[in-house]
Order: sequence, then C-alpha cells, then structure tokens
Amino acid sequence: MNKQWLLKERPAGLPTAENWQWQESEMPQIADEEVLVKVLYISLDPAMRGWMNQARSYVPPVKIGAVMRAGAVGEVVESNSGQFKKGDYVSGLFGVQAFARGKAEDLTAIDANLAPLPRYLGALGMPGMTAYFGLFDVGALQPGETVLVSGAAGAVGSVVGQLAKAKDCQVVGIAGGQEKCDYLTNELGYDAAIDYKTENVGKMIKKHLRKGVDVYFDNVGGEILEAALFNIKRGARIVICGAISQYNTQDVTGPRNYLSLLVNRARMQGFVVFDYADRYQEGAKEIAALIDAGKIKAEEHIEEGLERFPEVFLQLFSGQKRGKLILKV
Amino acid sequence: MNKQWLLKERPAGLPTAENWQWQESEMPQIADEEVLVKVLYISLDPAMRGWMNQARSYVPPVKIGAVMRAGAVGEVVESNSGQFKKGDYVSGLFGVQAFARGKAEDLTAIDANLAPLPRYLGALGMPGMTAYFGLFDVGALQPGETVLVSGAAGAVGSVVGQLAKAKDCQVVGIAGGQEKCDYLTNELGYDAAIDYKTENVGKMIKKHLRKGVDVYFDNVGGEILEAALFNIKRGARIVICGAISQYNTQDVTGPRNYLSLLVNRARMQGFVVFDYADRYQEGAKEIAALIDAGKIKAEEHIEEGLERFPEVFLQLFSGQKRGKLILKV
Repeated sequence: MNKQWLLKERPAGLPTAENWQWQESEMPQIADEEVLVKVLYISLDPAMRGWMNQARSYVPPVKIGAVMRAGAVGEVVESNSGQFKKGDYVSGLFGVQAFARGKAEDLTAIDANLAPLPRYLGALGMPGMTAYFGLFDVGALQPGETVLVSGAAGAVGSVVGQLAKAKDCQVVGIAGGQEKCDYLTNELGYDAAIDYKTENVGKMIKKHLRKGVDVYFDNVGGEILEAALFNIKRGARIVICGAISQYNTQDVTGPRNYLSLLVNRARMQGFVVFDYADRYQEGAKEIAALIDAGKIKAEEHIEEGLERFPEVFLQLFSGQKRGKLILKV
Repeated sequence: MNKQWLLKERPAGLPTAENWQWQESEMPQIADEEVLVKVLYISLDPAMRGWMNQARSYVPPVKIGAVMRAGAVGEVVESNSGQFKKGDYVSGLFGVQAFARGKAEDLTAIDANLAPLPRYLGALGMPGMTAYFGLFDVGALQPGETVLVSGAAGAVGSVVGQLAKAKDCQVVGIAGGQEKCDYLTNELGYDAAIDYKTENVGKMIKKHLRKGVDVYFDNVGGEILEAALFNIKRGARIVICGAISQYNTQDVTGPRNYLSLLVNRARMQGFVVFDYADRYQEGAKEIAALIDAGKIKAEEHIEEGLERFPEVFLQLFSGQKRGKLILKV
C-alpha cells in the first residue's frame, strides 16, 4: 500500500494539521517511460505554503484532494524507461507520499557516492540553486561588496552567506535567537549576525555595515525588508526570494519606504529558481567544489516519519530549525 | 533689487503659502568664473516638494532661510567667465528668484533659436531627460512592448508615452479627468487612457492590456502602483520615477502586492536623472529630432508672476495642469 498526505482544504493563515488528510491507497501503476520511485527524503520549504493557496502563482495551486506537492529524493524500484534502472537514486517533485510514479523526463539522476542523499534537497538542491542564482544572477554580486541576508540560518540563507564570503564580501545575517546567531558567526563565517527577536534590526545593520548594503537577499519581507531598505547603498540590489513573514497573513504589508529605491538608484527584483533549470549543473558544480574546499558547510535538519508531515512542516514557520528541513520517510 | 522666495519652514503635509517668505534683497555680486543671470522662466516640479523635507535625499534639503531651489532658464546680464557673455541664454538651478549668480561650470548654454526658452525646462530639459533615460535605460524598453504610464499628462509622463509610441509600443496612460484623458488619446497618440478619478484602474489596465504590462513608468505611487503590479507581465520592469500621491502624506503606503515581482520575475528600479548628466546631449538630440518629425508634441503650461510662486507651485498637487508647469518671472 502507498501512504500519502492529500491537501484537504486551503488554510486562511498558518496551516494546521487539519488542512491535510492521511490516506493509504493502492501502489501506483507506471506507464511507458515512467518509473516507480520509493521516496526516501522529502524537502519541506516555505514555498509549499504558497502552493496551498487558490491564487495563481508561478506554478498552479495544489488541487484539493491531490497529494501535497513537494520536492524529494528517492530510489527507483521499478522502471519502464531506458534512462533509469532499479536502484538508481533520483530527485523530483514526488510529493508527500511513500511511493511516486514519475516520468523519466521529469527526474534528475543523483549520485549517492558524491554526497549524502539529503544534501540533494539542500545545498546541492533547490535551496542551493536558489542561493546561487539569486545572489549572482539577480543580485549581480561583485567581490568585496557588502551583503545582508535575512532568514540567514535557513536552507537558502545559510548558503547565500557562505557563497558571499567565498567571494570576499562582508556578510551580515539576520536570524531569530542567540543560538542561530552564534551558528552564523562561529560556524558559517558570517562577519556579524543580528537577532531580530531581541535587537533593533535597523540600528544593527547601520552598526555592522556603516556604509550600507550593496546586496540584500530577502527571505522574510515585512519590517526587516523595510529596515534593509533604510540602509541600502547607491546602486543596491534587493533580491526578493521570499517573504516568510507574510505567507500566513491576510494583511500583507508592502515596504513603506520603497522610495529608497529612487533615492539610492536601487533595484528590487524577484525570481523563481525553476527558470534556471538549464543552469543547475553549473550551480551544483560550484557549490560542490566549495563544500569540498571546506568553504561551505551544508547542514540538514532531518526529522523522521511520513505520518508526522504536518507537524514537521509547521516548524518552518516557528523559526526553530536551522539548515535545511527534511522529512525522512 | 533682487526678489526671492525663501524657505521659511518645512511643511508637514501639503505645503501652504506660509512655508515660504518673500524677500527683496541686494543684487548678487559675482566672483571670478561666475555670471549674473536674469531668471526668465522657473521650472515647477514635484521633486521640489521632497527638497523641502529635512530628510536626506539624493540632494541635500533646502535650508531654512535659503532661496527655494528650482531649475530655471535665464539670460546672462554680467559675466566674469570666458565661457559666457552678456546676452547668452543658460539653464541651471537658479532658484525661485529674479536674479541669480552662477558658477560658469554649473550652467548649460541653450539655443533660443532652436526652440522656445520654456521648452528647455520641459521636453528638452529635466522632464524630457527623465522620460528618456527612465524609459530606455532603467526600463530597458524594447520595440513592440506594452507600456503603462501614470501621471501621463504631466511634464514627464507626456514625453514617456510619446517616446514609447515612437518605438512602436502599445501605450496606455493614467491621468485624472476626462479632459486630460482625451488629450492623451486625441493629441499625444496614446492607445488608451484611464481616468483614475472615475474608473477602476486595475480593471481598465486588464481591459486595455490583456496580456499585461512590460514597462510601468510610475510617477504617482500608492494604489495606482498596486494596480499596475497586479497586471505586470513576466520579466516586467517598473520604473520608479516619483510618487506624487505620497509626497504630502506622513503615512506612506508601500505596495502590498510587491511579491508580484517574485511571481513575475520582475524588477522595480529607482533612478535620479542627474546621474545621466553626461548623456543629456544624447537625450536632447533624440527628443528634438522627434519634435521636429512631429512625433512628440511638447506642451508647456505657463503662469506669470514671480510673486505668485506658492499658489502656482501648488497646482502641481491639485492635478489641474497638463504639460510642463512653468512660472514666467
């Protein structure tokens, strides 16, 4: 039997366990050019909250009654495709379930000898690609510039900061709590960390980056985005990667000081990592090399048990975790 | 005697006549490499409202007790510089006064035979340069794209729309009142006009530009910026030129739907026209050629009387004028 979490209803604010429904069902049958994948690790990402909404976004919403969409890695257990054979490891949008059928063309082969499997959901997966293309393509980061990152201890933010350090930039991270801030400066090499729960973010940005911010990588939105906008340099780039502070609220606030973009001749730009699919290999190669060189530490926070999905997913919004949040099936 | 308007106090919201003080004073004495200019036409611009604030901006605030800053054209009546002689026409930041001293290096010679003097404050001056560099450099407009302009009947907006039409773009303008909207479509060649005073701006954008907006040139901010953000295309560019709806309020609102930038992989970018000073000649040459070819109509709204400055300046915010507002001394 397969085990699945289906989307039962759309949340109004913060999701609750009641938004999903556990289901045991027949094992999927695969067609030509498809494979059956045993799902091993499921990626839990803030973007999944957006996919639960009715509104049109960069991908269609998850339908009510459908398996909750999620990236994952797994093992091929049956194959009708010449591209993959039993025992191969693959990544793809397998969803929150124990077994998934997938079209061969939608899967990516991964090498379990090069890195542990969960890493392909973190620094070598979407979060790593998001950090890499966001920082260098959208943010156009140049060596020696100043970089500010919010959600700095998270799956994307932790890679952003380390990539920027590897480019000889001055890097300040914003995170919640002393433990995460210590992690940024002691383990990830950030020049400074700001605890948004206890410190005045605007004042601390000014203190640590007296001349202002060249690139602000925003994962959170809200007041922290405003604090960053107050402290940008002329020609700054603000990379809009996400807005986790706004995902569960009906009453989204926009940055009241957006005219800082005018005064500082700055730009604010959004992006979606899927657009860079053609270049994932480039990003993964660079990040893998930096991991090998000890310049990027990749950390995964792994929780176990498919049946625990709702509870573990909600850890994303309680700010408890650090590193990449992953559910082991 | 010279006649001057000094800044007396900083306004909290909409300025009033009491914010300035009329003064008659000695004629200015000029030093080496300076000229004495008889001011003929003074440019009245929304940006001047920002210069009255205490806050740091892209230029220092006007000091209390100083002559109100303004661009102007005038005639050289005395010269200590080899660069200019008596009778030459020049433009510069002469301020709201009858006579000004200016350093030769800060002045631009203008040719009264090529165009009427007030045009050098409009389509051939800052507003024209703002339209040109904002649309083509910041907005990176390509032929055949869709363009939306707010403040479309104003000094900058009217040039933006006509420049875009000259590039074979589909152009929709937003302005206040039927008369201005008729002016956009009947005289300036806009494909459609939206009257924000009586129409639902978001719905009308969708109606006129079904596939969305490639470049939005924003002069107003506020709800109209939000309506535009709801209707941008993938890869859109939002040019932040100004935010006249926000200049006189303490309670600035940011665009609540700024995450449209993410979904649509779009950017929002501010600029200050002074940065393009090295390239003004390029812009003026292009615009002059389009005026000659009948593709750009330049309109100036000229009011007379230096003593009427406060009252005429406030016309900027009452939405009455169309074309470039100018005060004849």
